[in-house]
Amino acid sequence: MYGDIALFSGTANPKLAKEISQSLCVPLAKADVFRFSNHNIFCRLHHSVRSKDVFIIQPIAASYNEQGHMSSANDNLMELLIMIDTVKRDSGGRITAVVPYYGYGRTDKKDQPRVPITARLIADLISTAGAERFLTIDLHAGQIQGFFNIPVDELTAFYLLSDHMRAKKIENGVVVAGDIGATKRARNFAQALDMPLAIIEKRRIQHRDGSDAEALNIIGDVEGKNCLIFDDEIDTAGTIVQAVHFLKGAEAADIYVCVSHPVFSGPAIKRLTTSPIKEVVVSNTIALPPEKIFDKLTILSVAPLLGEVIRRIHLGISVGELFDE
Amino acid sequence: MYGDIALFSGTANPKLAKEISQSLCVPLAKADVFRFSNHNIFCRLHHSVRSKDVFIIQPIAASYNEQGHMSSANDNLMELLIMIDTVKRDSGGRITAVVPYYGYGRTDKKDQPRVPITARLIADLISTAGAERFLTIDLHAGQIQGFFNIPVDELTAFYLLSDHMRAKKIENGVVVAGDIGATKRARNFAQALDMPLAIIEKRRIQHRDGSDAEALNIIGDVEGKNCLIFDDEIDTAGTIVQAVHFLKGAEAADIYVCVSHPVFSGPAIKRLTTSPIKEVVVSNTIALPPEKIFDKLTILSVAPLLGEVIRRIHLGISVGELFDE
Amino acid sequence: MYGDIALFSGTANPKLAKEISQSLCVPLAKADVFRFSNHNIFCRLHHSVRSKDVFIIQPIAASYNEQGHMSSANDNLMELLIMIDTVKRDSGGRITAVVPYYGYGRTDKKDQPRVPITARLIADLISTAGAERFLTIDLHAGQIQGFFNIPVDELTAFYLLSDHMRAKKIENGVVVAGDIGATKRARNFAQALDMPLAIIEKRRIQHRDGSDAEALNIIGDVEGKNCLIFDDEIDTAGTIVQAVHFLKGAEAADIYVCVSHPVFSGPAIKRLTTSPIKEVVVSNTIALPPEKIFDKLTILSVAPLLGEVIRRIHLGISVGELFDE
Amino acid sequence: MYGDIALFSGTANPKLAKEISQSLCVPLAKADVFRFSNHNIFCRLHHSVRSKDVFIIQPIAASYNEQGHMSSANDNLMELLIMIDTVKRDSGGRITAVVPYYGYGRTDKKDQPRVPITARLIADLISTAGAERFLTIDLHAGQIQGFFNIPVDELTAFYLLSDHMRAKKIENGVVVAGDIGATKRARNFAQALDMPLAIIEKRRIQHRDGSDAEALNIIGDVEGKNCLIFDDEIDTAGTIVQAVHFLKGAEAADIYVCVSHPVFSGPAIKRLTTSPIKEVVVSNTIALPPEKIFDKLTILSVAPLLGEVIRRIHLGISVGELFDE
Amino acid sequence: MYGDIALFSGTANPKLAKEISQSLCVPLAKADVFRFSNHNIFCRLHHSVRSKDVFIIQPIAASYNEQGHMSSANDNLMELLIMIDTVKRDSGGRITAVVPYYGYGRTDKKDQPRVPITARLIADLISTAGAERFLTIDLHAGQIQGFFNIPVDELTAFYLLSDHMRAKKIENGVVVAGDIGATKRARNFAQALDMPLAIIEKRRIQHRDGSDAEALNIIGDVEGKNCLIFDDEIDTAGTIVQAVHFLKGAEAADIYVCVSHPVFSGPAIKRLTTSPIKEVVVSNTIALPPEKIFDKLTILSVAPLLGEVIRRIHLGISVGELFDE
Amino acid sequence: MYGDIALFSGTANPKLAKEISQSLCVPLAKADVFRFSNHNIFCRLHHSVRSKDVFIIQPIAASYNEQGHMSSANDNLMELLIMIDTVKRDSGGRITAVVPYYGYGRTDKKDQPRVPITARLIADLISTAGAERFLTIDLHAGQIQGFFNIPVDELTAFYLLSDHMRAKKIENGVVVAGDIGATKRARNFAQALDMPLAIIEKRRIQHRDGSDAEALNIIGDVEGKNCLIFDDEIDTAGTIVQAVHFLKGAEAADIYVCVSHPVFSGPAIKRLTTSPIKEVVVSNTIALPPEKIFDKLTILSVAPLLGEVIRRIHLGISVGELFDE
Repeated sequence: MYGDIALFSGTANPKLAKEISQSLCVPLAKADVFRFSNHNIFCRLHHSVRSKDVFIIQPIAASYNEQGHMSSANDNLMELLIMIDTVKRDSGGRITAVVPYYGYGRTDKKDQPRVPITARLIADLISTAGAERFLTIDLHAGQIQGFFNIPVDELTAFYLLSDHMRAKKIENGVVVAGDIGATKRARNFAQALDMPLAIIEKRRIQHRDGSDAEALNIIGDVEGKNCLIFDDEIDTAGTIVQAVHFLKGAEAADIYVCVSHPVFSGPAIKRLTTSPIKEVVVSNTIALPPEKIFDKLTILSVAPLLGEVIRRIHLGISVGELFDE
Repeated sequence: MYGDIALFSGTANPKLAKEISQSLCVPLAKADVFRFSNHNIFCRLHHSVRSKDVFIIQPIAASYNEQGHMSSANDNLMELLIMIDTVKRDSGGRITAVVPYYGYGRTDKKDQPRVPITARLIADLISTAGAERFLTIDLHAGQIQGFFNIPVDELTAFYLLSDHMRAKKIENGVVVAGDIGATKRARNFAQALDMPLAIIEKRRIQHRDGSDAEALNIIGDVEGKNCLIFDDEIDTAGTIVQAVHFLKGAEAADIYVCVSHPVFSGPAIKRLTTSPIKEVVVSNTIALPPEKIFDKLTILSVAPLLGEVIRRIHLGISVGELFDE
Repeated sequence: MYGDIALFSGTANPKLAKEISQSLCVPLAKADVFRFSNHNIFCRLHHSVRSKDVFIIQPIAASYNEQGHMSSANDNLMELLIMIDTVKRDSGGRITAVVPYYGYGRTDKKDQPRVPITARLIADLISTAGAERFLTIDLHAGQIQGFFNIPVDELTAFYLLSDHMRAKKIENGVVVAGDIGATKRARNFAQALDMPLAIIEKRRIQHRDGSDAEALNIIGDVEGKNCLIFDDEIDTAGTIVQAVHFLKGAEAADIYVCVSHPVFSGPAIKRLTTSPIKEVVVSNTIALPPEKIFDKLTILSVAPLLGEVIRRIHLGISVGELFDE
Repeated sequence: MYGDIALFSGTANPKLAKEISQSLCVPLAKADVFRFSNHNIFCRLHHSVRSKDVFIIQPIAASYNEQGHMSSANDNLMELLIMIDTVKRDSGGRITAVVPYYGYGRTDKKDQPRVPITARLIADLISTAGAERFLTIDLHAGQIQGFFNIPVDELTAFYLLSDHMRAKKIENGVVVAGDIGATKRARNFAQALDMPLAIIEKRRIQHRDGSDAEALNIIGDVEGKNCLIFDDEIDTAGTIVQAVHFLKGAEAADIYVCVSHPVFSGPAIKRLTTSPIKEVVVSNTIALPPEKIFDKLTILSVAPLLGEVIRRIHLGISVGELFDE
Repeated sequence: MYGDIALFSGTANPKLAKEISQSLCVPLAKADVFRFSNHNIFCRLHHSVRSKDVFIIQPIAASYNEQGHMSSANDNLMELLIMIDTVKRDSGGRITAVVPYYGYGRTDKKDQPRVPITARLIADLISTAGAERFLTIDLHAGQIQGFFNIPVDELTAFYLLSDHMRAKKIENGVVVAGDIGATKRARNFAQALDMPLAIIEKRRIQHRDGSDAEALNIIGDVEGKNCLIFDDEIDTAGTIVQAVHFLKGAEAADIYVCVSHPVFSGPAIKRLTTSPIKEVVVSNTIALPPEKIFDKLTILSVAPLLGEVIRRIHLGISVGELFDE
Repeated sequence: MYGDIALFSGTANPKLAKEISQSLCVPLAKADVFRFSNHNIFCRLHHSVRSKDVFIIQPIAASYNEQGHMSSANDNLMELLIMIDTVKRDSGGRITAVVPYYGYGRTDKKDQPRVPITARLIADLISTAGAERFLTIDLHAGQIQGFFNIPVDELTAFYLLSDHMRAKKIENGVVVAGDIGATKRARNFAQALDMPLAIIEKRRIQHRDGSDAEALNIIGDVEGKNCLIFDDEIDTAGTIVQAVHFLKGAEAADIYVCVSHPVFSGPAIKRLTTSPIKEVVVSNTIALPPEKIFDKLTILSVAPLLGEVIRRIHLGISVGELFDE
């Protein structure tokens, strides 16, 4: 239908791109993608992509180059858009944006007046630049698929994580939703592992003197149990570490944390390494610099999954059937 | 900015439209909106809407005319679209679709392969027809706002419902989420009423012989308590009535059900009237025919709220501030 | 160019779809297309359509299921749109909406102020949902093709009908336009059958006392002749039956009625069966429930025609040449 | 709603623009609109139109400058588009294209394979350039309104023409459709003048030797009657003059021709002046150079009508009501 | 990817189209493209282009038919748009507009208030009509590529011209920019020929009495040198001939003029033939009628270049690599 | 036409925004615009902008907060887009993006294969986000206006700079274009100051051994003259400082540098402060952190100009006339 695959990597997660390339047995296409002194991004493809089936791999997350300089999620988003424009103007046959982590996913609704819905904005920007398909992993909300008007394939690291935990044969376990928003996700994890579910609820409490406080509250039973906190991402780790301490206070046994996306911003690493968590399990959708990798951290690779799905998209074979069994 | 308000009603909820008209002190604009023998819809405005600030009130829900003939949600959606087209082609100054109930809201994500996202489709249809603003109440998910590219004002019957319940001064109450999906909503209601939260979880259980069963499970404490089941809508009432029976089995005291939208389809009325619910509280976003009104049902009117917001939109005054205090 | 054909049927005319499938030797693709209790439509494809060349067959007309429940043209239009959305989001390679009868086709212009142009609206809705091609039969006006911005193939049942009539070797025939709007169409039929043309004109007559009356008037010669009334559709049959009686009053001999689309709404069946028509000839673009089938009715199948054209579209072969000879 | 009216004239019919300006008591806004040596068009507004309510008057028809050089309909269309672009980029508040004659209107459907629908194309071009409203007179088919997605006001010269003819108090008159395509239009004229209708039908006749001929045929009664041929436009006058001769052969008495748009291309003037027509009545939607004006020609001005409608559009007053009585 | 090539020529440069056809060994597809008496353009393809890879060759420049009648650039642009519409509605597989000369290219920015940017407008018109790719030669400014949102291949006659001049082995040469706007282009030519650069600057000089004059000024050294004036096009030849006289006054030796596009409008031929130029070298992007061909004129053909690039586009092979060496 | 002005500042140049606010006598509207730990941007308006005439001031350039942390141009662009989305979804009446410096302006054409046209991409992103007007200063190329489809007002710091230099009454001056691309701009500056023009040309020279070198070359006369190097921006200052040294080598007297936009990236400050420039004159379109301000730097404010133009846009008064004198 289209020419050969042309697999490009932006600068946000080149290691993942390399793994995907190996998994697919398709070499990464060469391009100069760099920043000028003024931090503007430029892109020049080494070879023509005319009529090719182009996949551009770039999570919308901060990344660090070898010198330790950070590129923000915004920089990496712009890099993605500029690469798409380049491929479009070089007459690429079909352009699929492969975004393993969809940044800004939590800004997906107006839960207060006068705020943006950035997750929709970014969907529009990606279409405007010229992408014709979108491939991603574990969106913050399923509805974000509906923000796109181009076909979306949303994959999940859920099975990677649940297989990993199941293999541990944890006895007396309970899956914990660290806050109300994670309930549904945690329930599905609990069902997959055949464990009960508990939920930590946070409430604002208004004191008589008008001051506000926050009180945590556990719904369900955790005492003496091994807890698996499950969510889609860890950002600053504030909620999760608060949950860990609360669970410990409620006499929980071992605590594991499983999430798809290790955003690990600000104080996250410090919080995670100093809290009584037994293991933090994540996927490699987001590149982590060496200083963000710590002993208790297990990283599972989504590259075989992405590779297989890219192959299916290219060949026009069902992706859904991969998950049907 | 625009000319006078022109307030139109489709045929899906003329009673609500009349109440809004009275609340606003703006008469309903006249139009012939009818079905031909072949059920095709036609529309003819009695007076020009050139440059006017046009509001068209039409929930996307089934309705019944005086002869008891049903119009499906699809019929009423098409009627809305045709009215928008009519107003656009008559040079209306600005067109706001006022859709108190956004049907198809639950088809808002692909939770299995090869299904539609109809809630996004409908947002696109409404824009395509020519609406420039959208006004609605209690979307099934906040993200649906992001399905629109035109400005959306989403109002809520939450305060109507919580004020109604608070006035009852129910002692020893607990707010119950009838299923996992209602957790967040129920939590907010619990917080507003200063009650604890309980959640009913449904799980598929695989028997050794390969057969499937469903088991309900309560997370939190309901024994001896007055339960307030809270959700956005009642459709067939299956989940809610199942929850009611389960709660009764768990020794709950009185049970109240509070939802914004009384869809009441299929067996809903039979189920609700025959189950041990003390009161069902809903709003009038959807018109109910006489045979769907029953003793235990309380209907609260959203007309003053919609009227005030239409006034503010027309005058260019903040809507958000209405809810800020 | 695209993958294999995937041929889907909505619920509006499954019999025609089956005939097309047989004519094409391509089985119908399986999908669950159904209505919930609240009459909302849902769709789930059984197999992936990724990269396939998808054709969705659905006339925009009322239909009746086996229990005799009616779905309105609006329901069936929404079903079409939802199926298109489903296929688009499942990465179908190319989507052709096959709409044998284009409902709302008579609302194709503003012949009075403040009315819609629904035929344009629906063209936009179909494109918005994601159809990339449109295949139809005998539009009410040729200009409706121009309402679409996607390629349209408009086929015609004209030759089916004219061949059928020619085979009867009717002597002393005249083709009659039942009203002014059918003149051009009737002229072409007259030319194909080498018969003269007559036209029935309806006029509003203003009496001196201010009251209105309608007078029929025949232009051309029908006395003693066998009349063939020709038009694109019969809806309520009002105009046609009025014409029949008028022709009988003008001493016409046998009267035949030939139309492409048997809409047959409201009193149509009663009017047709009780009027002195010799034969009503229609095509099967619209599904007729058993109670709308009557003795004098002849139904010609458009399935071979649609099958052949779908084959040509799929293979990229000229459709126009099919009609060039 | 918008600033003052800014009324511009392209070069296609400056005389009509001046009359409209006088009728509206709004001076024409100044602009240099000219052709370079390479015939490219350039436009420079003398004063800012920022926020103004801009009307640009330009029929899509050939025109002749004072030196007798012709600008084709294409030139004048491009001029219109370039003026729209200029006004848009100068931040005009609202742009209405006033196109008294919509050229290419007869290319409104695919009545044979592999031809364009230029009337739709032009509607898209006008929107693309930036027009937000469209004002025109007597489209070739009402459906062309549906080619636009912006609001259209279609006026008619029908009443100008029928008033003119009624004032003549012609006895024993018949309105004649010069060909089948004009039937509906002619019927309306007949009804307005309370005259009967006759139709001239042209048929291709296939001789036994395979050669083709064309035969005219009259449906209805014209002998001894005064004939009023009515249509929307005269182009080369071929059909009309053929009809005139045919009517004369059928013993018609006086023959009048009434059309809205005097395209008068190619041999039209010669044909009209040499044929036995008593009077040709047209409007001034298209500018006629001196050599195209002849004795039997009566030109009625649409300027008061256009002026009044522009005034109503500007003020946001109903246009439809102008014609309601 | 697409079906076979279908190569069409508009009427603006059929000779070039024939040469391209020969160079490609692909016959020109047949179509009737003609003007009616009213100068409206019509188009009818002889054969279906369904699924074909369609290329339509048409410069946006004035042309002359065999009878010497001129079609303006506007006529030829409209012809291109109508042909695109025709192909789109006949289901062409992919449509590439091949526009060897992009007229209106100099109206590419607002260098004064209240003027259009016609070069952007035309890009939008071409996309609106349905072209999916654009192929052109030597745009007036590189930025015009950015006016398009569809992929553009811009070729250049630069190497044709520089090879031609290099072959002359001109000693003591200097490349001259005829005005400031041509500086960059001339510098590149100078570098390619390894010659120095000189620039003619024109300045408005304000006299004390308020009157304006224009003074030419040479920057760089031309005395006794052979001058090569280089630019993208010659329109009226005013600037170039002024430069020639100025250079002669500055004691230049031989003067050559090299441009890609021979617009040759208005007094161009007279000016060029009567001025002391040794040779005028152009390409055949624009068709020249016999009376515009003169002794000192050399015409180089871009047909082999366009043919090769069309072949590469069709096959999905890199076009850029053709120029990479 | 719209409600009151609401003037917002992003974080890229708050000082300029404050000056504009003071110049306009309109306070800056309050909003929280900040970065989360993960560098994602969030925005919350303090007050409703419903129906207001909203202006958002944000150059697309790097900026530094008070802690010295840099935000890249990409961050600031995203901030602009997110603010626009916020205002759009809060029903702002009209949204004007005020971008004093349009970053990525130099990536405005494909001067080599397989590169992006980022300047067009960004224009599309800004429209997609919801801006309805664009206000900027000194685009890198005038054609960039044509990249927008919304109305653009491009202002210039040219007069600020030329007035500043004229006031110095420099004798024996020459304006120098630092490279070929700056020629036209420099010529206009030369004409405004009534000075001659000189151009520095850089050429790649190919040595016999295949190695490349670059040679500078001056066209025009600079010896003993005071040189004014004029351009639109200084980025790394490489070209300009190279020009300065070359001019000094050519015996130039004092050297001034005048540009609109002080990008000052990478080694710019070091290069400028250590080179023999007498004065660097810039505007304040881009915020400079303290460490980028040096002795020889003169900063002229564009705030009064932007303030006046915003006032005129708001009131619907001509902007062009401000520059017509």
